[in-house]
Amino acid sequence: MGLAGFITAASGGVIWLVTQKDKNKELKKRDGYLIVTLGWLSMSFFGTLPFLLSGAIPNFTDAFFETISGFTTTGASILSDIESLPKGILFWRSLTQWIGGMGIIVLAVAILPLLGIGGMQLFVAEAPGISPDKMKPRIKEVAKRLWLIYLGLTFAECILLMFGGMTFFDAINHSLTTMATGGFSTKNTSIAHYNSAYIQYVIIIFMFLAGTSFTMTYFGLKGKFNKVWQNEEFRNYLILSVGLSICIAFFVFSAQWEGFEKSFRDSLFQVVSIITTTGYVTADYTAWAPFLTVIFFLLMFTGGSAGSTAGGIKIVRHTLLFKNSFLEMKRQLHPSAVIPVRLNGKAVSGEITYNVLAFVMIYVLVYGVGVFLISFTGVDFDTALGAVATSLGNIGPGLGSVGPVDNFSAITPFGKWLLAILMLLGRLELFTVLMLLNRNYWSRY
Amino acid sequence: MGLAGFITAASGGVIWLVTQKDKNKELKKRDGYLIVTLGWLSMSFFGTLPFLLSGAIPNFTDAFFETISGFTTTGASILSDIESLPKGILFWRSLTQWIGGMGIIVLAVAILPLLGIGGMQLFVAEAPGISPDKMKPRIKEVAKRLWLIYLGLTFAECILLMFGGMTFFDAINHSLTTMATGGFSTKNTSIAHYNSAYIQYVIIIFMFLAGTSFTMTYFGLKGKFNKVWQNEEFRNYLILSVGLSICIAFFVFSAQWEGFEKSFRDSLFQVVSIITTTGYVTADYTAWAPFLTVIFFLLMFTGGSAGSTAGGIKIVRHTLLFKNSFLEMKRQLHPSAVIPVRLNGKAVSGEITYNVLAFVMIYVLVYGVGVFLISFTGVDFDTALGAVATSLGNIGPGLGSVGPVDNFSAITPFGKWLLAILMLLGRLELFTVLMLLNRNYWSRY
Repeated sequence: MGLAGFITAASGGVIWLVTQKDKNKELKKRDGYLIVTLGWLSMSFFGTLPFLLSGAIPNFTDAFFETISGFTTTGASILSDIESLPKGILFWRSLTQWIGGMGIIVLAVAILPLLGIGGMQLFVAEAPGISPDKMKPRIKEVAKRLWLIYLGLTFAECILLMFGGMTFFDAINHSLTTMATGGFSTKNTSIAHYNSAYIQYVIIIFMFLAGTSFTMTYFGLKGKFNKVWQNEEFRNYLILSVGLSICIAFFVFSAQWEGFEKSFRDSLFQVVSIITTTGYVTADYTAWAPFLTVIFFLLMFTGGSAGSTAGGIKIVRHTLLFKNSFLEMKRQLHPSAVIPVRLNGKAVSGEITYNVLAFVMIYVLVYGVGVFLISFTGVDFDTALGAVATSLGNIGPGLGSVGPVDNFSAITPFGKWLLAILMLLGRLELFTVLMLLNRNYWSRY
Repeated sequence: MGLAGFITAASGGVIWLVTQKDKNKELKKRDGYLIVTLGWLSMSFFGTLPFLLSGAIPNFTDAFFETISGFTTTGASILSDIESLPKGILFWRSLTQWIGGMGIIVLAVAILPLLGIGGMQLFVAEAPGISPDKMKPRIKEVAKRLWLIYLGLTFAECILLMFGGMTFFDAINHSLTTMATGGFSTKNTSIAHYNSAYIQYVIIIFMFLAGTSFTMTYFGLKGKFNKVWQNEEFRNYLILSVGLSICIAFFVFSAQWEGFEKSFRDSLFQVVSIITTTGYVTADYTAWAPFLTVIFFLLMFTGGSAGSTAGGIKIVRHTLLFKNSFLEMKRQLHPSAVIPVRLNGKAVSGEITYNVLAFVMIYVLVYGVGVFLISFTGVDFDTALGAVATSLGNIGPGLGSVGPVDNFSAITPFGKWLLAILMLLGRLELFTVLMLLNRNYWSRY
């Protein structure tokens, strides 16, 4: 652990020295893509050191998979026996997710909207005290405020979990990975290990909060509930989570599962866990009924709220596109009329709508290519579809042989690298990474 | 058969009388959606009569499924023992597809571009002698010309198949359903029934032609091969079909299948059959290898060429969106520059690109909703994903229990109606039908 820290610090020092001479150059927009992508990649490379040096994960591919799964807050694991690992390693594993989550918050409020990526401006328009035009002066202020909420909620969850009888070590680890919507657990059976309704409901609430835009949480803490409820993304997020859980609960209940409370709790836990892209597990949804597998598969493409630590496509984009699809028909009927999409009562510019459309298209394209490539590793149909969906959406568990009660150890090294890249792509909202692969990016560097 | 004809004619007569008084009103754009949708629906309703009255398919849901599967040139069947049906019924079944194919040609060259649906203008821009602005005068001329090609190719295939030893009855039936990219066969085992390389290659060639824009075939017949090769959609269609077949052939061959020629033929047949959305079968691709199932599943979203009888998303749309995705990154780097997508050397307007984006998004949305709904009928994961993909793409065989060697008889009535609606949606390029479900459509009727 000490050695790992030393190597990382030394490398950081060298890079700092090398870059000092450019200190006074102003950062350009195009540098943003490179810095963010390289930042996440180098964190993931150096983050493997504790796993490698302690011998907890001796294989480099496995260690990299586990680390990038941490920093991207995905939560997919190659470990079969988590409980046998030393506590220091388990804590590092949880910490990668929490650090990743902090990074995502800055990214969401400060960097992505400036880069104009896939409609992230939509989120910023709602954030307190920042406008897309003149946000620089207050960026630091806003980031600090949201980090404070992030930190505060982590502590609050930790204390509430300890009330439920969790040890301090398990409570802090689970709090770190809940707030990051990461999903790494210190137990082999994830949250199913805790047979306590109290603990499970606490985690449900904090998963839901972690998947809520931190700006909304900020308003909520300030007592502006009206403002929270008026936010269309939050409303849809809440209605979808609860509504779907109730429907699923009836099916699970009617299929002779324990009581209705247990059926509802299991449904709600799994739905919130997948929607928020956390990936904790208290029940194997792939074992419930075939059609529920389909529904959970579709949920992998929902994602949480923009401006939270959740991954995936995100509800605000779905909301916008759903509304736009209806308006598209209205536009066909009145070709000369200009009919903008309205979100939270404000008209959304055609450019942003186009941006969001392009984002989702590229998401689907990358998904298709990912499934195509992973299928060459010999995995079956369900596993291929599930593994790519869960990696790109930064969720954790997939379907088939990478389902909720399995892990990713059986995937080939090629498959692991592919999924690792997909995690990074998904986490950095596709464009940040893909931009670097574009010829035009380098042409005038 | 006579009774069926009488009922249809009588109903037609009544409708004709009712609509006579509006004869002099000019047709408006909004009427287009209604006429096309109702046209296909009423054909599908009256088309059930031969099945019902002959007792070949006594159940109305089943008969409607089979008929709409015919008129939409899908080719999904609920029949288990096709060969036991009377010849007249089998011929009617093939004819529904051929008539559907004729309808699609008019739709593609005349109606959809006028309605401005999902980038169909792109195709018209290439069609001989028509321009989006002043196409009315020559619409009849163009439609006649393309119908002649359709008819000519049907006869040519019929004769070539008879050379291969097929009976006249089987040859004409298979020709009707090949050119419509329909895929109904008169044999229980589809084209696998004919153990003749000659017959299978003939069918491959005609499936490929049927999935080629009829405009390109027209140019080809006129000897303008240069013009055909310069068409980006045709080039991608050819490269994808042949390239993918060669790759798959190596896998099938290495997995100890008969000879290399047989492996290549099986691969090419299945690839062309799915890409062109025909749906004939000579081998069960779901039994080859799990990763090949994934590839065939992805192929279900490719579709043939615009302006052919093929269904699905279509290659021109994929080409445009693929190019646009790359340019989107260029645009992010140079926000002030206007960078249009170029297709066949011409700049495509932003409006059309947006249209195509919206089309594909709605396709994905409808697919998701379809999978969600079908999953309630109790089918498993593979079947749900495959059945909806094959119905919406107008292909025929799916995955799981509706795979290439199975049929749709085990689907519940609700499922059959759902898939029937999806076939219609897919065939009429989504907007035509969805428009009618939109409140705005009726608000000022």
